[in-house]
Amino acid sequence: MPFDILVLATGVRAVMPDIPGTDRAGIFALKNLTDAIKIKTYLREKNCRRAVIVGAGFIGMEMSEALQLSGVATTIIDRGYLPAHRWSGELGELLKKELNEKGVEHVSLAAIKAIETGEEFPLRVITDKGDWPADLVLMATGVRPEVAVAAELGIKIGRTGAIAVNEYQETSLAGVYAAGDCCESRHRVSGQYVNIPLGDIANKQGRVAGRNIGGKPMKFPGVVGAQSFRLFNLEAAATGIGEKEALAAGFEPVSNVTTGNAVAGSLGKKLLVLKLIADKKSGKLLGAQAVGEKGAVSRINALSVALWAGLDIDEISYLDLAYSPPFGGAWDIIHNAAQALRRKI
Amino acid sequence: MPFDILVLATGVRAVMPDIPGTDRAGIFALKNLTDAIKIKTYLREKNCRRAVIVGAGFIGMEMSEALQLSGVATTIIDRGYLPAHRWSGELGELLKKELNEKGVEHVSLAAIKAIETGEEFPLRVITDKGDWPADLVLMATGVRPEVAVAAELGIKIGRTGAIAVNEYQETSLAGVYAAGDCCESRHRVSGQYVNIPLGDIANKQGRVAGRNIGGKPMKFPGVVGAQSFRLFNLEAAATGIGEKEALAAGFEPVSNVTTGNAVAGSLGKKLLVLKLIADKKSGKLLGAQAVGEKGAVSRINALSVALWAGLDIDEISYLDLAYSPPFGGAWDIIHNAAQALRRKI
Repeated sequence: MPFDILVLATGVRAVMPDIPGTDRAGIFALKNLTDAIKIKTYLREKNCRRAVIVGAGFIGMEMSEALQLSGVATTIIDRGYLPAHRWSGELGELLKKELNEKGVEHVSLAAIKAIETGEEFPLRVITDKGDWPADLVLMATGVRPEVAVAAELGIKIGRTGAIAVNEYQETSLAGVYAAGDCCESRHRVSGQYVNIPLGDIANKQGRVAGRNIGGKPMKFPGVVGAQSFRLFNLEAAATGIGEKEALAAGFEPVSNVTTGNAVAGSLGKKLLVLKLIADKKSGKLLGAQAVGEKGAVSRINALSVALWAGLDIDEISYLDLAYSPPFGGAWDIIHNAAQALRRKI
Repeated sequence: MPFDILVLATGVRAVMPDIPGTDRAGIFALKNLTDAIKIKTYLREKNCRRAVIVGAGFIGMEMSEALQLSGVATTIIDRGYLPAHRWSGELGELLKKELNEKGVEHVSLAAIKAIETGEEFPLRVITDKGDWPADLVLMATGVRPEVAVAAELGIKIGRTGAIAVNEYQETSLAGVYAAGDCCESRHRVSGQYVNIPLGDIANKQGRVAGRNIGGKPMKFPGVVGAQSFRLFNLEAAATGIGEKEALAAGFEPVSNVTTGNAVAGSLGKKLLVLKLIADKKSGKLLGAQAVGEKGAVSRINALSVALWAGLDIDEISYLDLAYSPPFGGAWDIIHNAAQALRRKI
């Protein structure tokens, strides 16, 4: 295949658990628009009443909301103890509570063993914690970068399993660029290359590759790991790195969890919980996670910019934010959390 | 008055227009809790049906919402053309539209001449654009730092009319500190001293003064001018400096106004308008203003951190923010606005 310029935008593929029965009708992954259309069609045509989601990451969370709200009783089979398990337990507990309140069953520490045909319902999900009948099973058990073409071309694959690129989105082979979920990004906090398959990062890398190909060179400035999802009435968002990644990157992480209010106290109560992680040596912010009825994404975006710029906890304690009672207190939860964490350093 | 340490926290006082009749019963300013209680008591005891607010700044906006929603038909007498006139017209127009839709009358370019006793209603507000009957008149015509005690002590007053302080909140007189609305703050964008009487700044300065007095010295790091208010279903927020202030500080401001959506297009339409101002020479962000049905405060807080850290428009164009459809597009309005402004530089 002769070419002058090649752009690899091969994305990720869904990882399916290695168990019997995953090829039965009614079992889906959700990676692209075609998958979504197939799921919607199946839901309608089979008049589905019960769904099982395997996995409690972002896709599992978002799909549990979508299914439950469309009238399909939904169970999540989670190999972890709490949903979104890369996040702290304090936040995972809020997510679990919200799932339960909205009627979604969340089964902790469950290993899926097989999917069989059922009796009352067409499918039966077998786990070590019991069996669940289902019209539809969604496998939300993660994704892996699709690098087959890159590997065939002898292009360097990074430590993460995604295509290695430099800041111009160039791969190790001249004339070949890669962008999006299939390739790595430099994490501005850890300094390490990571694979974070998210649509906004993919869009940015695509534009950077295009500019470099088109003769208006620019560098992709890297990521800080900002991400979010909604779960019924909760906002959930995170940025930066957690304790485990911080230790791996040579930091000395200290953290705290602050419970607060997304609005001024005089205007009522909108629960907002914010976890901050900082480096004991430098005092720099390393990461943040937030879950709340309101304002979680807003705080995480402000802290994403703080991470981008490398601010330390002292600066974050006194950031000038746009205070008024409907949007927070005179001391925002960001200030309170940073000041409390400062005292631990 | 002998003292070792004195802290001046004298605040601001409301400025009343120099017209006849401002001492009549039913005419209020709103500066403190006592004022608020007086207004609430009067509203109830007099069974008020009509109010006139003089001034269309933050207090005017917030009180028009409070009064109108409590069933009092409200008129705003504005000497400017659009509400919140220090902001751009594109944003002021959205505020005016919201006032009108919610039944608040906004009278542009009107000069108040007198307040007289009325017939059907106890008061009559006389302006060059007509007369308005009222049970209650709220003077929301601005505030001025209260510096009488400071001046008596021979303490230096800054160019803004507020008490001059250094970054330890020390005034020009040894042992005397000042904090809050009565004193100046260093603006991190312009580098100039400003007086921005807002509760969050006052809280921070109070703590800094306290720490310095108590022997745990720290510097107040300055402000970026972040501020916000809600007007019925709109969020309004701003940060940094506008074109006029930018010119005065020696910058060469360029700006643009971007109309977008606070959520992903697939989830419907939540209008969000964002104005950015940058310096043509350095490419640095100088300020931002946003009005929208959702997400305005969130964007302004992220941009406040960007201003704090001195980011330029190129960096802001590719910031890593916590994308998911309920909270924005894969390219956030911040990215779109910054990229469009970059093309003007």
